[in-house]
Amino acid sequence: MGNDAIDDVITALRNASLRGAETVRVSSTDITISIGRVLVEEGFLGNLREHRQGTNRFLVLTLKYQGRTRKARITTCRRVSKPGLRIYSGYKDIPEVLGGIGTAILSTPGGIMTDREARQKRIGGEVLCYVW
Amino acid sequence: MGNDAIDDVITALRNASLRGAETVRVSSTDITISIGRVLVEEGFLGNLREHRQGTNRFLVLTLKYQGRTRKARITTCRRVSKPGLRIYSGYKDIPEVLGGIGTAILSTPGGIMTDREARQKRIGGEVLCYVW
Repeated sequence: MGNDAIDDVITALRNASLRGAETVRVSSTDITISIGRVLVEEGFLGNLREHRQGTNRFLVLTLKYQGRTRKARITTCRRVSKPGLRIYSGYKDIPEVLGGIGTAILSTPGGIMTDREARQKRIGGEVLCYVW
Repeated sequence: MGNDAIDDVITALRNASLRGAETVRVSSTDITISIGRVLVEEGFLGNLREHRQGTNRFLVLTLKYQGRTRKARITTCRRVSKPGLRIYSGYKDIPEVLGGIGTAILSTPGGIMTDREARQKRIGGEVLCYVW
């Protein structure tokens, strides 16, 4: 399930957003690409692109900042399910993050998706992380 | 201070975002234009435009929805200072909304601005509303 890759992207985004970095580079795997795509669709990230340098592949994620004070669109990210303690949720019990303000990202049989999409499609899965 | 205009825009945005409306029409006044501009800058609204029909002027605000489930960018708006109970704040006491996730909009001697901008500029003012 590529857990180090998930930690990689969550920690990188949290730190980049605290620092005010324009972009952040993470390892390119199926799971980081899927998480990145969901974050772009949800408006948390500007875009993602894949770079190849010889045999190395990596992802470049562009962060979003808004307003005259350049507020980071991602306030923080938090890992939920961990290699030592997996958190799964049936679709009826999928958590709302901060009463719907934040977003949970789940790994489901239908792919990586948000809590809202999983609830709509009535599929549960592993709760990877919270973003708000 | 045009309080009915502030109620107008806050209520209109809250309802439009719950309904999933693409745009919402509010009265066009200095204060609603200023609030609308701050919300566009902060990424809560797509844009605002002013319409004139004969002698009537009104504002059209475009809402933002993101992701495959079209999550509203504005979860809700809440009025703070009211005609019967004014809430003012010195710059050192400007409230953080939901630990920085949300935004407070203030009317200050330097114009309408967010809590973060007012804190940065070290000016207080009337706390008009919270948006998140």
